[in-house]
Amino acid sequence: MTDAAQHVWMANAIRALAMDGVQAANSGHPGLPMGMADVATVLFTRHLKFDAADPRWPDRDRFVLSAGHGSMMLYSVLHLLGYEDMTVEDLKRFRQLGSRTAGHPEYGYAAGIELTTGPLGSGIATSVGMALAERVLNARFGDDVVDHRTYVIASDGDLMEGISHEAIGLAGHLKLNRLIVLYDDNGITIDGSTALSDSTDQVKRFEAAGWRAVRVDGHSPDEIDRAVTEAKNSDRPTLIACRTVIGFGSPNKAGKSSAHGSPLGADEIIATREALKWPHEPFHVPNEVMSNWRDAGTRSRALRDEWQSRLEGQDAATQREFTRRIKGELPDNFEQAVQRLKQELAENPPKIATRKASEVALEHFNLPLPETLGGSADLTPSNNTRTKGLDSVSSDHYGGRYIHWGIREHGMAAAMNGIALHGGFIPYGGTFLVFADYCRPQIRLSALMHQRVVYVMTHDSIGLGEDGPTHQPVEHLASLRAIPNLMVFRPGDATETAECWEIAFRTHNAPSLLALTRQNLTPFRVTYSGENLVARGAYEAVAAEGEAQVSLFASGSEVEIAVEAKRLLDEQGVPARVVSVPCFELFAAQDADYRRSVIGNAKVNVGIEAAIRQGWDAIIGSDAIFVGMTGFGASGPYEELYEHFGITAKAVVEQTLGRLRS
Amino acid sequence: MTDAAQHVWMANAIRALAMDGVQAANSGHPGLPMGMADVATVLFTRHLKFDAADPRWPDRDRFVLSAGHGSMMLYSVLHLLGYEDMTVEDLKRFRQLGSRTAGHPEYGYAAGIELTTGPLGSGIATSVGMALAERVLNARFGDDVVDHRTYVIASDGDLMEGISHEAIGLAGHLKLNRLIVLYDDNGITIDGSTALSDSTDQVKRFEAAGWRAVRVDGHSPDEIDRAVTEAKNSDRPTLIACRTVIGFGSPNKAGKSSAHGSPLGADEIIATREALKWPHEPFHVPNEVMSNWRDAGTRSRALRDEWQSRLEGQDAATQREFTRRIKGELPDNFEQAVQRLKQELAENPPKIATRKASEVALEHFNLPLPETLGGSADLTPSNNTRTKGLDSVSSDHYGGRYIHWGIREHGMAAAMNGIALHGGFIPYGGTFLVFADYCRPQIRLSALMHQRVVYVMTHDSIGLGEDGPTHQPVEHLASLRAIPNLMVFRPGDATETAECWEIAFRTHNAPSLLALTRQNLTPFRVTYSGENLVARGAYEAVAAEGEAQVSLFASGSEVEIAVEAKRLLDEQGVPARVVSVPCFELFAAQDADYRRSVIGNAKVNVGIEAAIRQGWDAIIGSDAIFVGMTGFGASGPYEELYEHFGITAKAVVEQTLGRLRS
Repeated sequence: MTDAAQHVWMANAIRALAMDGVQAANSGHPGLPMGMADVATVLFTRHLKFDAADPRWPDRDRFVLSAGHGSMMLYSVLHLLGYEDMTVEDLKRFRQLGSRTAGHPEYGYAAGIELTTGPLGSGIATSVGMALAERVLNARFGDDVVDHRTYVIASDGDLMEGISHEAIGLAGHLKLNRLIVLYDDNGITIDGSTALSDSTDQVKRFEAAGWRAVRVDGHSPDEIDRAVTEAKNSDRPTLIACRTVIGFGSPNKAGKSSAHGSPLGADEIIATREALKWPHEPFHVPNEVMSNWRDAGTRSRALRDEWQSRLEGQDAATQREFTRRIKGELPDNFEQAVQRLKQELAENPPKIATRKASEVALEHFNLPLPETLGGSADLTPSNNTRTKGLDSVSSDHYGGRYIHWGIREHGMAAAMNGIALHGGFIPYGGTFLVFADYCRPQIRLSALMHQRVVYVMTHDSIGLGEDGPTHQPVEHLASLRAIPNLMVFRPGDATETAECWEIAFRTHNAPSLLALTRQNLTPFRVTYSGENLVARGAYEAVAAEGEAQVSLFASGSEVEIAVEAKRLLDEQGVPARVVSVPCFELFAAQDADYRRSVIGNAKVNVGIEAAIRQGWDAIIGSDAIFVGMTGFGASGPYEELYEHFGITAKAVVEQTLGRLRS
Repeated sequence: MTDAAQHVWMANAIRALAMDGVQAANSGHPGLPMGMADVATVLFTRHLKFDAADPRWPDRDRFVLSAGHGSMMLYSVLHLLGYEDMTVEDLKRFRQLGSRTAGHPEYGYAAGIELTTGPLGSGIATSVGMALAERVLNARFGDDVVDHRTYVIASDGDLMEGISHEAIGLAGHLKLNRLIVLYDDNGITIDGSTALSDSTDQVKRFEAAGWRAVRVDGHSPDEIDRAVTEAKNSDRPTLIACRTVIGFGSPNKAGKSSAHGSPLGADEIIATREALKWPHEPFHVPNEVMSNWRDAGTRSRALRDEWQSRLEGQDAATQREFTRRIKGELPDNFEQAVQRLKQELAENPPKIATRKASEVALEHFNLPLPETLGGSADLTPSNNTRTKGLDSVSSDHYGGRYIHWGIREHGMAAAMNGIALHGGFIPYGGTFLVFADYCRPQIRLSALMHQRVVYVMTHDSIGLGEDGPTHQPVEHLASLRAIPNLMVFRPGDATETAECWEIAFRTHNAPSLLALTRQNLTPFRVTYSGENLVARGAYEAVAAEGEAQVSLFASGSEVEIAVEAKRLLDEQGVPARVVSVPCFELFAAQDADYRRSVIGNAKVNVGIEAAIRQGWDAIIGSDAIFVGMTGFGASGPYEELYEHFGITAKAVVEQTLGRLRS
């Protein structure tokens, strides 16, 4: 058989499996797999470096299906290539509960799924982090150990989403020439022709962002092959716009939106089998085609073995460090750094903002942790995310450890996911807490993918003052605590801040978000404790004198208000205790006895947080007093705002005494 | 004095007021007002059509300060132009609590502030909606009545944010040639040089999106003037990239990031006064300069009077309709349409999805309400947002009433804000509920600006089934209910859906979000009620037989589960009642008696919602049972997912009986 004929068969295998999978599920998206089958075949059989038998090989090329709705393309390819945990049974169970073949690719469900995609734009933006991580890790370990590419298949939707702009701006600026995006330019969206909603010249647009950009016929293996080969030799990232026909092969649905997101239907599948000259039973792939695909699956095995030899040729320390970094394990001396910092803070408790305390913690931790990769979305002097000795990463200096993300919060978050998924790093990045809203789709994906990404979000309440309501978080703590598997920390002084960072670094399987103040706070953790108290989520910070009549629960900047309110209540002969609540999620994970003991059984519970009440009732009870915000903030000096909104020790005392008297 | 000399004085007045205002506040951003003073002077004195004495003139040009941190520029200009509610005292109270001159421009604080800006990218994206609204309203009422432009000043940050991509793609596609963006190309961001994080060729980028784009010297009044004049004659939207020096006039800080976001300082202000040859006291503007500015403030008065005559020359019905549309009042026949629909639904209660019920409601309401402007972010067949007779809006047909927003959720939301702010329309737009995360920064601004914008968000739970966790909202209801002044509706059947729409249309001062199901629901509102029961937020949908031992609270698709659970409990001899909770916010706004009566005093309260518990405790109590989600969803047929996650009538009954026995 000629190469060309072989290609057709191999591509049609993807088409057939995809349409069969969607038909069996009676749900899904055949259009992209059928349209991009030629591109995928060229990519996986001629270019992508991987070993189906060792899917976690650190130096493999990464493949990102940004258009996650085309998941049957990825599943089909993984099956054809011989990935062990993608059997034909898995394909038949497409979109069924508990299957590896979820509606959209889900990270962790099967080897070869490098990330979760589905929310459009996420994949292409995450790939920028992967490509960046590769260059930064390469700068540390050299070509012998780190030398791979990131390939992306993206759709119209990916390129229309705003996040794609942030992503390609970053990639172009950083000259990430190992990033190659293949754009499924099929001219069709759900509403109909792409021309209904868009007229962008994508090639020109990518060029404006500093990319190489070319157009090819997405059904010509030679054109695709040539374009990818050229892209591999480019000094810039490359966009390859592939003109394709959505649902290619379907006589009546190809080129139409009806091919996008619904099964072709039994009759059309018969017609498509005929048109493709693919007479095989559903899910059956003839031996010769399968054998060609399996060969492709092991094509890079020699490269993998050579890499292994090169790694083993490194000195022992380098090998150990590389392995540690890839495994994501912390170095032994991290624990010492933690305890040293906590001792220093206890000896001389500083009255500083928690954003400053975070900087102090990072000054202590960035040294023993060479894997941290810091940054800020253009708020470095405000977020305090850059510590001594962290050079800026640039296209001239991938050896840096600090990234100027620009005014691109969403792109930063996605790229941090990519850095974490790539491995070898713990990314952290800063912005104002209110702009968590910009990052939110990616924070959700950090949580869904269980990635160790640290969001450093300063200016966490009306305490930021004059910038006013657009910059003052009010609902953000609640809305972030709502995201499953995200640890939201709101430390109340420097020691708690250090403990939050310790947990964030130690937690392999969840992202952390630190909500930090702009304003200075009075420390309350003034004696050294080797134990990480924040790890319990909430704990009694100040005990009552005698039996507590009142329990005051607070987080972050409001702990000092609680401590002051306790003092005032004590003066009134009302014994009160203070519970610091730096992390709802960790507190909810404690056993019932511990939780009961912390909540206590005082007559009156009071929650204090410069934010809305939502979520607090689970701790303080729905009949408790809450002193916080009920609407948007205002512009003014922050002390006046606290007075104005009644978030003061005096207000706490008044309401508490009122309740005790009633 | 020559025109050129006059210009310098007028521009320096802005510079001086801005640096004085920031200095007095000891907080704020002098860099942009000083850098863009020449541009602003040219714009407001030679081009912008407005009347300082009639700031709400419907046919005025709109001015959008997308770079909201430069608020002192806008305040200074409004003061200089003679806007009544922007006195020198207001300027002196910049950033003080209760002042009109908030840190960032806040809509509603003073005339001339057309929208709230501050979150970068929002302004430019909102301006697209304003410019689109102008064209669509023009198509309805003609050049005599609607004929104005939208001008934007945008910064590097605005253009780096992803939303700017969605915005310019829309504007270019729709050929909104009355949109003119002046870009403050000062090469400086907070972290330092823009070159630290970006290399985008903005001119090429805008051209790729279908814009005209030119570069000018932002300190040359003639170049700016010429470019704006050309832009006014363009058939496409125009970007004018203005090369400027940030903090222009400050001898030691101009051109540096230190000029961006901090007061210049007393010494530097003295030096700047000298450099600008502006010897006047702080906040003092010499008479001649002021008089020139005041002339500019009334420059378009004749145009305004001519417009008034033209409006009065229209036939009475047109005048009435235009005035009604601009005031945002509903037509008299809306009430009939509501009652007719509710009668039809009561006569023949349909078992349909609430997304379908929403379509049914829109079919009834779009006819009497010509002001609705519908759309979807490329999910029209899923969101059911397009009703009969709604033509697509395109650059060839601004007379349409339906917008294909493309895969641009965030841009859609911003543009809807712009449409609402412009006046004459009630915009509604659809996407999946999970993608509320993409829209979130703009939903917050809808709420903060009190705009009547309706978000139609379908596929509102695991009930969407196979698309899996990336597409299944779990935390979204809670996180949206957290936003102040946003009404989140989750109707449980067709009648409730109709009532939600009625409230959304009638509420002038708040946005609404409808969370709607993909799956069909059994109706429970089967008898006609003229009253809008949803308006109470929650109400007893099914009474108990006898004294209720159990109160079952549910929203949306889970009301039918509650009804079934009640039936099963009745069978067990346990009287139960069902409370439908379609809107938390409206329920919280009811008086205490009503709330108490709805909550009741059964032994056991149960909340049922296919989402997380957060927020429910305020209604059901923190000791109540909650049947819902605790983590992310999964991919599979939806009935299986409900079983898998234990959100079933059987589970409700089991847990309830368990609690009653304990």
